[in-house]
Amino acid sequence: MSATLRLADGISCPVSTVPVDRVQLGHGSGGKQSAAMLRDHFLPHLSNPVLDQLGDGAVVTVHGGEIAVSTDTFVVTPVEFPGGDIGSLAVHGTLNDIAMMGAVPRFITAGFVIEEGLDFGLLDRVIRSMAEAARAAGVPLITGDTKVVERGKADKLYINTTGIGTLDGVCRPAPDKAQAGDAVIVSGPIGSHGMAIMAVREGLAFDAEIVSDSAALFPLVERLARECGRDVHVLRDPTRGGVASSLNEIAAASGVGIVLTETEIPVPEPVGAACEMLGLDPLYVANEGVMLVILPERLADAALAALRSLPLGASAVQIGRVVPDHPGMVIMRTALGGSRVVDMLPGDQLPRIC
Amino acid sequence: MSATLRLADGISCPVSTVPVDRVQLGHGSGGKQSAAMLRDHFLPHLSNPVLDQLGDGAVVTVHGGEIAVSTDTFVVTPVEFPGGDIGSLAVHGTLNDIAMMGAVPRFITAGFVIEEGLDFGLLDRVIRSMAEAARAAGVPLITGDTKVVERGKADKLYINTTGIGTLDGVCRPAPDKAQAGDAVIVSGPIGSHGMAIMAVREGLAFDAEIVSDSAALFPLVERLARECGRDVHVLRDPTRGGVASSLNEIAAASGVGIVLTETEIPVPEPVGAACEMLGLDPLYVANEGVMLVILPERLADAALAALRSLPLGASAVQIGRVVPDHPGMVIMRTALGGSRVVDMLPGDQLPRIC
Repeated sequence: MSATLRLADGISCPVSTVPVDRVQLGHGSGGKQSAAMLRDHFLPHLSNPVLDQLGDGAVVTVHGGEIAVSTDTFVVTPVEFPGGDIGSLAVHGTLNDIAMMGAVPRFITAGFVIEEGLDFGLLDRVIRSMAEAARAAGVPLITGDTKVVERGKADKLYINTTGIGTLDGVCRPAPDKAQAGDAVIVSGPIGSHGMAIMAVREGLAFDAEIVSDSAALFPLVERLARECGRDVHVLRDPTRGGVASSLNEIAAASGVGIVLTETEIPVPEPVGAACEMLGLDPLYVANEGVMLVILPERLADAALAALRSLPLGASAVQIGRVVPDHPGMVIMRTALGGSRVVDMLPGDQLPRIC
Repeated sequence: MSATLRLADGISCPVSTVPVDRVQLGHGSGGKQSAAMLRDHFLPHLSNPVLDQLGDGAVVTVHGGEIAVSTDTFVVTPVEFPGGDIGSLAVHGTLNDIAMMGAVPRFITAGFVIEEGLDFGLLDRVIRSMAEAARAAGVPLITGDTKVVERGKADKLYINTTGIGTLDGVCRPAPDKAQAGDAVIVSGPIGSHGMAIMAVREGLAFDAEIVSDSAALFPLVERLARECGRDVHVLRDPTRGGVASSLNEIAAASGVGIVLTETEIPVPEPVGAACEMLGLDPLYVANEGVMLVILPERLADAALAALRSLPLGASAVQIGRVVPDHPGMVIMRTALGGSRVVDMLPGDQLPRIC
């Protein structure tokens, strides 16, 4: 049901032939089409002050204190890939959303949709991996649900996880808090998760295997918050849609411009090679163990030192700056000295990447 | 991939021909096979003190107070049926689990898996219905997630909802608190949800349309708690697996016997007729707006009066008693004066009923 559109700048993008009055794969992209579906079909009915903030989660008050809540369904295919599987991904992804709100991840729930005929050996591996990820994060899985659907009504298994964290009020990053004069930092090399999945799907072989970066980001946030506290303006894990989509959302929400320096963007060599082969731009490729940090430039060195003190943040680097010009837009200063707009993708570059 | 086994007592039950090392439809039944899958494939890895209680949700402490958390994925087919749709069902189902823990439902999240090609008109109706159910319950949907999968990798749409409620400590029912001498009360007529779904699926026509009972139970719980407070030993909404499965679980958890009086069990006439036609027992049919209440028999009249003070509880009736004999077993005193064991079903009577 889909063709491929090769964009001028080398980004390929599936183009659906599904009629416009029906949901297309691109509506699951996390890009412009996703935003349009949310705006046209969900918010008109469900609108309320908390939901309307449209973050990766919600902050609400219970028993006189604030909690952060985030939910995510994982439909990644294949369910096992180099560096992880749908089980560990479902834990990391949701706990990372909680961490990005400046909250301490405390509890996680899981809802499984299992396709009839799933091999119990695979199920066991996924559940074990999920349990190990939760244990490593110090977050108990407190309740769950399993449903089984007929063969051909799912694709092996889908996992929803919902995370609950507690906020202490010190570090309260939000997508609309970026300010002109801030530095844009990335905690590690980008593109590994998406390209690990793509390499398996496409049966590509490289000299060095590409391994998903799927990891819990909370330890990095904790280190950063200790150093920079409430000066951390924005935290964001650039999953679906990659760094480009996340920065576009932040620029729009904060009403600021962002300028990236192409030569600073850390792309592992095998990821770059795979992207070139498939006509993809690593800026749009999903990450599952990387975060963007936006905070005053005077704190950039301290933030980088804090991030680099942990192995997961060893390659942290400043990739750009927040500017008052061109609000809502992300501009790339290219290696050749030119500039180009880094827009959101209209549809889905890599379906079912998480 | 499945055949049908007609049990001696007239209950038919799909029998999977899927190999035993693979997940079968019956593993989603909420019955013995579900329990075995949980015991053999989930708990060995995920075990922790909260999860091991295996209720319909979890109670944990945040900011010095207790919250109840429950998660459920809805895969009902068809997604629209007389009396509701997957949207309202996903709200009622999860908020009811919260209410059954004696908690006040406060927040709900939603995760959607949408099949490529889904008609936006259908999506709009489901989201509107979901929003109306949440609004009627006074519970905001605070955050959500949407994923789109290829045609043939889902069945229109699946919805996970996770609910959060607050506990004030007055009413703390639990499945292991039933005591000999307690009354077993049901808040309304049974079997309507499951048979409404089956009637649509099988294309059955009856004189009176069977309408799902899908409804929020919290108002009934509130009324009951005001009257009977901490004397409410057990609350349970008998969904998948019906009244029979819920009572078996309660009898096992509490180490007590339960005796039901067949002539007291309220089965609407069209539900009874449909069950007879399909060879089903209404005791095993899912309900989505009915609850079981177990509390000391001396409070039965007060509880019944409280329940009957609301339209949803108008037909509340005592259907049995908790006894010290035959612990873990549910026995039915039949209309003909005999007795029979009301066991849990081995597998799935009605797949994808919620």
